[in-house]
Amino acid sequence: MNEYRFFCEDIKKPVSELSGAEAHHLVSVLRLKAGGRIELFDGMGTLATAMIREIGKRKVTLEIENLQKAEPINLMRIIIAVSIPKAERFDWLISKCTELGVDRIVPVLFERTVKRSAGSEGMERFKRIAVSACKQSGRIFMPKIDKPNNLENVLETLKTDYPSAKILVGDLASESIPLTSLSIGDKDMIAFIGPEGGLTDKEKLLLESSAAILVSLTDAILRVETAALAFASILACVRDVKK
Amino acid sequence: MNEYRFFCEDIKKPVSELSGAEAHHLVSVLRLKAGGRIELFDGMGTLATAMIREIGKRKVTLEIENLQKAEPINLMRIIIAVSIPKAERFDWLISKCTELGVDRIVPVLFERTVKRSAGSEGMERFKRIAVSACKQSGRIFMPKIDKPNNLENVLETLKTDYPSAKILVGDLASESIPLTSLSIGDKDMIAFIGPEGGLTDKEKLLLESSAAILVSLTDAILRVETAALAFASILACVRDVKK
Repeated sequence: MNEYRFFCEDIKKPVSELSGAEAHHLVSVLRLKAGGRIELFDGMGTLATAMIREIGKRKVTLEIENLQKAEPINLMRIIIAVSIPKAERFDWLISKCTELGVDRIVPVLFERTVKRSAGSEGMERFKRIAVSACKQSGRIFMPKIDKPNNLENVLETLKTDYPSAKILVGDLASESIPLTSLSIGDKDMIAFIGPEGGLTDKEKLLLESSAAILVSLTDAILRVETAALAFASILACVRDVKK
Repeated sequence: MNEYRFFCEDIKKPVSELSGAEAHHLVSVLRLKAGGRIELFDGMGTLATAMIREIGKRKVTLEIENLQKAEPINLMRIIIAVSIPKAERFDWLISKCTELGVDRIVPVLFERTVKRSAGSEGMERFKRIAVSACKQSGRIFMPKIDKPNNLENVLETLKTDYPSAKILVGDLASESIPLTSLSIGDKDMIAFIGPEGGLTDKEKLLLESSAAILVSLTDAILRVETAALAFASILACVRDVKK
């Protein structure tokens, strides 16, 4: 892996551009010059090498030299649908889920979710965090990050997008199955992680009517972001075995 | 769980004391008064209720009312022996490992470990982080956190302390066994997580001679703290099933 890899949403031959934070990083932080070679990724499997052709005030023009498109390995996608934790705890969740190879992160507004929005420029910041985690870990697929939505809408969207997915809900109820003892096949997995105040009866019914499986992770109640990472770790480890 | 739980290393009837950060928290942050009731834990399984008897300048005197000692469940202890990551990444590792119920965190100075010490007052800070994570998660057992030491010394210490433990090493080599497919019994588990630069040949030999099992977590190289948390999540989930 090249040390200098940049995120570029639209990589196409013969010429692409970098602007915004990525251009700033190239020009002002790394102080690369025209003629230098870099790598590009688009977060959807494209990896390219490029030559820096021109450094402008607000954009960098690149000549694409070699472009490879990796197909996503669709075997068991991992979707983390999680009550938004506050500030840096959600940033951290996004960063770590990206590293672990989670396919999609869906912030859910449960009735007891305290943090109700992604904040101004929140979605843009989340994307920057995922880009940064991709760069650090060498991943070329970036998770899709949804806008926050309520449970009903999230369930509807995810059931449409992943019709044969297994739906899991983190829960410490006595009937819960430990996640590591669950038979995990090749199906997409959607893990719901509720807010610290727990699910309401209405939300429980809604999930039950979607055939959600109650699973437990440890013998203690974990913080939202810890539970999300435990789900992601366990599911990613099982999935990557199957490849 | 009482909302006001404090860490007190030496809980004994009839009277105990709080000082330092815990006294400050009680007096200046929560502004509790003499006569109020609180909970105490010592991180080693003792949980007590106490009455605030006197609030002094630098210490709080407590009358212990009810004292319960939980025995540690020794079934499969989890030990995370990890190359020290920098600053807040290690803080975060300690916090999350505490939440997940890890029994011991051992910072290891591998040959390629960049961060070579815990910093001035580092050990005290690590302890505060673990105390805080215990309070938040309601755990009454706190992980033991060792002083940083080299691999040779760490191996010797841990083999003496956990003679029948299985030793695991996070590794992406082709012969690695995925952690979730490993048969995990009731034995103590020691997971070694090397530095971002990888293990040296000498270190590999040292671990091999200790019958360490190479295990992989995902198909990508994870950051040190992410690998530690993935180990902790998977081992804790398997262990807690067995209880």
